Amino acid sequence: MILLAGSFDTKAAEFAHLRDVLVARGEQVLLVDVGTSGVPGLVADVTREAIARAGDVTLGDRDRADRAPVLAGMAEGLRRLALERADDLTGAVAVGGSGAVALAAPAFVALPLGMPKLLLTTMAEVAAQATSGSDVIVVPSPVDFAGLNGLTRLVLDRAAAMVSAAAAVPEPREGGRTVAVTMFGVTTTAATEAARVLASAGWEPVAFHANGAGGRTVERLVRDGRIAAVLDLTTTELADELLGGKATAGPDRLGAAARAGIPQVVSVGALDIANFGPPDTVPARLRSRTMSQHGPLDTLVRTNSEDGVRLGEILAEKLTAATGPTTVVLPEGGFSSLGAAGGAFADADADAALVQSLVTRLSENIRVVHAGVPLDTADFGRIAAQELLALLPPSEMDRHRHPHIA
Amino acid sequence: MILLAGSFDTKAAEFAHLRDVLVARGEQVLLVDVGTSGVPGLVADVTREAIARAGDVTLGDRDRADRAPVLAGMAEGLRRLALERADDLTGAVAVGGSGAVALAAPAFVALPLGMPKLLLTTMAEVAAQATSGSDVIVVPSPVDFAGLNGLTRLVLDRAAAMVSAAAAVPEPREGGRTVAVTMFGVTTTAATEAARVLASAGWEPVAFHANGAGGRTVERLVRDGRIAAVLDLTTTELADELLGGKATAGPDRLGAAARAGIPQVVSVGALDIANFGPPDTVPARLRSRTMSQHGPLDTLVRTNSEDGVRLGEILAEKLTAATGPTTVVLPEGGFSSLGAAGGAFADADADAALVQSLVTRLSENIRVVHAGVPLDTADFGRIAAQELLALLPPSEMDRHRHPHIA
Repeated sequence: MILLAGSFDTKAAEFAHLRDVLVARGEQVLLVDVGTSGVPGLVADVTREAIARAGDVTLGDRDRADRAPVLAGMAEGLRRLALERADDLTGAVAVGGSGAVALAAPAFVALPLGMPKLLLTTMAEVAAQATSGSDVIVVPSPVDFAGLNGLTRLVLDRAAAMVSAAAAVPEPREGGRTVAVTMFGVTTTAATEAARVLASAGWEPVAFHANGAGGRTVERLVRDGRIAAVLDLTTTELADELLGGKATAGPDRLGAAARAGIPQVVSVGALDIANFGPPDTVPARLRSRTMSQHGPLDTLVRTNSEDGVRLGEILAEKLTAATGPTTVVLPEGGFSSLGAAGGAFADADADAALVQSLVTRLSENIRVVHAGVPLDTADFGRIAAQELLALLPPSEMDRHRHPHIA
Repeated sequence: MILLAGSFDTKAAEFAHLRDVLVARGEQVLLVDVGTSGVPGLVADVTREAIARAGDVTLGDRDRADRAPVLAGMAEGLRRLALERADDLTGAVAVGGSGAVALAAPAFVALPLGMPKLLLTTMAEVAAQATSGSDVIVVPSPVDFAGLNGLTRLVLDRAAAMVSAAAAVPEPREGGRTVAVTMFGVTTTAATEAARVLASAGWEPVAFHANGAGGRTVERLVRDGRIAAVLDLTTTELADELLGGKATAGPDRLGAAARAGIPQVVSVGALDIANFGPPDTVPARLRSRTMSQHGPLDTLVRTNSEDGVRLGEILAEKLTAATGPTTVVLPEGGFSSLGAAGGAFADADADAALVQSLVTRLSENIRVVHAGVPLDTADFGRIAAQELLALLPPSEMDRHRHPHIA
């Protein structure tokens, strides 16, 4: 079922046309009116009043001064409705200008990754900003939506064709063999080797850059059930979350896998680093730290022993909450290529403080492996991958190779 | 034929997969390699060497220092190739990160409006900026493209499905009846009435906001043959171009219709206004002008008599170059609602200077109609629309109503 959301006062003709085209393509349609003024020109499956109730606002008073909270409430109402109906939905389309973008963006961003969600708009840049970090598709319209004509019909027909065709593409059958591998520039050697080991054992490693967006995407994909296991080599985003750096993935990083109960191997990759912008964006309290200038826009700040203790606590708390098999693999001699012996961020004391804090707090059912090598090495990657494979069921490929395994 | 463009070194598996999916859908594919390093892992229909030649660069020297001009040359080569083959193309897809965006964006922006052009990328915001003002569709990928797996296959399969489905949607049959009407907030009354008159005569008026992007889109659609006639009520973008305002559509505004030889009716809507941002963005030389603050981000500057003379010259020059039937309709009593009697921008002398400059320079074959009413009135809109209808062939509707017309 395709969700169609917009203002059924000014855009009734457009939505009626979209509905007709989609129905002609064999789609079921859920018409949702999020308009706040004028009179709906199209009968909605979910009315504006129902959306207002879901968003805890009333449409009654439409004074200009009250408009912003009403619009925010309608956006929230649409978001709640969309999430409630998400299992029935195969795609979503919203149409309009900046108002439509503001109304639809929170709902579309909240809908599952992979579901085709098209924001058809005359305000493409506003839409791109409002949906930043998501997989919402912005379809810019060169013509205003103010009634049907040859040009708007072409734009609408093509959007309908796109969402319908994308929704018809089946989820990959080989799903359930995807393994997320978190990496950063300074942990690439380990991650690359780990991915190679996983792939050769018949799994599908997917690398995610632990730059904030990457970590959030992993959390999201785990939540959506699209990831079989996580090789969380690079948990650096926790350092950014702690120190206020720009590459944070939010406080819930590592939460999804713990809750989902999927197998995970976790390490401390790049926890020696927090990321800031140009030098003047580093907070005053951190200016005495060891720093490294990685281009004019990137200043790296070394975490210290005190941070290490706190990061160890945070990791231990997150891992203890895990409901699935969990192994911690720890390096010897640096958490990243920058923190390895001779590197600008080498600081054995700070590393030891973190490891000590973590290990003493971990619950007993969590396996701890001391790899004995620096993190950003092929050896470390191989050891971590093998630990994960030990938590995973044998792949088809393995069963084929070793028919004695059940 | 669908254009597939990207780096066939690192992304060979992705492009081979896209090609296979598209071919299975019955599409023809044009594989274009724009890679600049490594070894292509896929045989291209247009090789990187051919693209380099088209862009006047050589791939031989791949030193880091030389990379930027080589990439710029490859982007230009792809742009030229795409425009050369545009008539064979029904869609286009590019895949990759910020490098792929930089390589593909100029070509995709240059391809005709309406053609589905998908930029499938992990760098959606960069892509949105690089294609700003175009109708290029940015499809954000939540996963990196570094080999095929269940997730990348789903993203690629859905992109292939979308471009193929969109390309299959036929151009509207009733094409050729679209009339562009240019408007601005201060010319809405006239434009709305003009659109009503055109629609009731069986034409399809499409309104464009003359805010820079709108004017450029009109020029573009005219150039692509998607507009039958132009009711250019609101030529205000020329004032911004003259005074350095933010709503300029570039120096070639009004050029496309002149070259295409399509019927046009042109007026002076909002030529009393140039648009700037916050007050401090108004250039010093204009600070003594009459101004109007239209919200904190919009400062309107009144054009004066001297500007009027120059704008009259510019309009006359552009209209004299027209190869199709052209009528100029002139108001009496203000070029906009702001410039009407009693308005903040009322200045009969400046208006007269522009009209005088224009009328004395127009070539004799251009009809000039003095409407005798202010521009932003329903009467003016009606007169202008009727003048355009006089230049147009009778519509089907008219032929039906008046069967005595051939």
